[in-house]
Amino acid sequence: MTISDPVVALDAMGGDNAPGEIVHGAVLAARDLGVRVALVGPEEVLQAELAKHGARPERITVVHAPQVIDMKEPPAQAARQKKESSIVVGLKLIKSGKADAFVSAGNTGAIMAGGIMYIGRVRGIERPSIAALMPLSGKLTLLLDVGANADARPSYMLQWAQMAAAYMERVWKRENPTVALLNIGEEEGKGNTLTQETYDLLKASSLNFIGNVEGRELPFGTVDVIVTDGFTGNVVVKTMEGMADYVMGEIRSAIKSRPWYMAAGVLLLPAFGKVRKKTDYREYGAGPLLGTNGLVFIGHGRSDAKAISSALRVAAESARSGMLEAIRQTVLAKAGAALAADEPVGE
Amino acid sequence: MTISDPVVALDAMGGDNAPGEIVHGAVLAARDLGVRVALVGPEEVLQAELAKHGARPERITVVHAPQVIDMKEPPAQAARQKKESSIVVGLKLIKSGKADAFVSAGNTGAIMAGGIMYIGRVRGIERPSIAALMPLSGKLTLLLDVGANADARPSYMLQWAQMAAAYMERVWKRENPTVALLNIGEEEGKGNTLTQETYDLLKASSLNFIGNVEGRELPFGTVDVIVTDGFTGNVVVKTMEGMADYVMGEIRSAIKSRPWYMAAGVLLLPAFGKVRKKTDYREYGAGPLLGTNGLVFIGHGRSDAKAISSALRVAAESARSGMLEAIRQTVLAKAGAALAADEPVGE
Repeated sequence: MTISDPVVALDAMGGDNAPGEIVHGAVLAARDLGVRVALVGPEEVLQAELAKHGARPERITVVHAPQVIDMKEPPAQAARQKKESSIVVGLKLIKSGKADAFVSAGNTGAIMAGGIMYIGRVRGIERPSIAALMPLSGKLTLLLDVGANADARPSYMLQWAQMAAAYMERVWKRENPTVALLNIGEEEGKGNTLTQETYDLLKASSLNFIGNVEGRELPFGTVDVIVTDGFTGNVVVKTMEGMADYVMGEIRSAIKSRPWYMAAGVLLLPAFGKVRKKTDYREYGAGPLLGTNGLVFIGHGRSDAKAISSALRVAAESARSGMLEAIRQTVLAKAGAALAADEPVGE
Repeated sequence: MTISDPVVALDAMGGDNAPGEIVHGAVLAARDLGVRVALVGPEEVLQAELAKHGARPERITVVHAPQVIDMKEPPAQAARQKKESSIVVGLKLIKSGKADAFVSAGNTGAIMAGGIMYIGRVRGIERPSIAALMPLSGKLTLLLDVGANADARPSYMLQWAQMAAAYMERVWKRENPTVALLNIGEEEGKGNTLTQETYDLLKASSLNFIGNVEGRELPFGTVDVIVTDGFTGNVVVKTMEGMADYVMGEIRSAIKSRPWYMAAGVLLLPAFGKVRKKTDYREYGAGPLLGTNGLVFIGHGRSDAKAISSALRVAAESARSGMLEAIRQTVLAKAGAALAADEPVGE
């Protein structure tokens, strides 16, 4: 099912820069990119924020949700109890068919838990997964899982790779996307028990599996999909952030250490700014929560207006692409193959 | 036991730059830092390399070892079969008391396997661990395990933390070193099963355990010891390398994109060079293999003369520091406490 003019629900209260930057991002997406946005949050707050941007764009509607789930709240409990929160109300807009996708830069765990509670999993998917789109080198790589499942199993990881490949194919137009396994050596047989077993599953699948990649490869966009467990994925994403901050900070200090360096450094400021952005995966919007029965995108807590606007564009494009249907068919195809082979599906 | 003028055995054939840079590193350490070095490798090759540096320094001796273990050979098999290799001969120099420490930038797995085969484990230590010294921010952090044990257990990780703390205290003079657990959130209770269980062990130990740290913290030297499983540790070390290469490469490209950037960039070359070195943990010598009954240091495969010379200095300092004795006592103390509590030691 593809949707020609999708509505994207947006959690206006999610993230460190909510509601200001989030509402600003909605205005940018609606005005400049033509995205239809359902802005979810306390009505008065949203109207006040919208008023700062002049006449409300026609393509923005406001959906009242008086409660807010804080970034630090226990995720599952908050998603269960705060039924009037912007996250839960936004997710329910998908369930009821009033929205075609949901974007939030809020409490990741609550979005994930709420997604499973209120939208449900795609039939046959064992565990949904959070993916991060890493555009560091211009060429995009989707890394998953980046934190939804700290303890993973080979069968989960195979499904994540399948869903990620469907996403890269439908939304990012990659033909027969390449898939790699994050590991501690390139050769087959390397790794821990989890990656060794996952390697075998990936190799036997119909995916375009190119083998193991090491941590060094992550920034270079050499593969379309890199699959890993949620513990490792979360640690490496944060390590990359820390390392980018560290290197840029060291350059700043080195330049400040001599007056003539300072003079040259000033000339290079725009160049450094460009590099800074390229090292920052936050710039490029939100990562999909793959495996729920609806399109959910999770932005970085520090998302600014530009990141939100970019996330809204990707969410709308995903709704248009029929990606959810592709994921459902991937799982059905697998189930069909398993039935044909007289084997149980899943675990 | 502290040793006043230790002999450090050096694998002259280990690493991508062997034997040239390795022998050069030995000469630097012997001449400039006063380290006694037993250079291990094919005698003719070593004499020819030494001849390039003028008269052989008195503090360098040559120990003949005709075989070489390649970087890509199957580690355990190579260590078992190539008894005349520079790695095995070097390790045996420790066993026989002719050397007080061993340094190699060669096949990590073979050094580890050979260490266990020919030197043996410290009694009570379940699994030796490879540690990496990360000096990125000037303040040192010892990260372990970085690849010896892809599948870890909480009890291993507790022992690694204990050994690492003893190393940082004795060799790097940290008083009551801080220990943290690499995890996907700062709060207690975060993580996968492994880190949750390890957290409890670390908390109950007599270590100066400060809790969880996330990947972001790794480059900033905020903790003396960071403990993780060998899979995650290996992935993050390589991710940090990749990210540093990536950021510096992007800066180079950005500078080349405009003539006036180029002019400013030339002025800043020395500053960039300084940053490049600070992002490179290879600059700072080798990481200890902790848990074998002797002092073994593993350098990065790309070690140059400076890295080798620095590793030799640290190895000599370790022999002087009585660190091995401190590790043995840590394990004995734990065994004593366990016996007193009528509990089994280890698994």
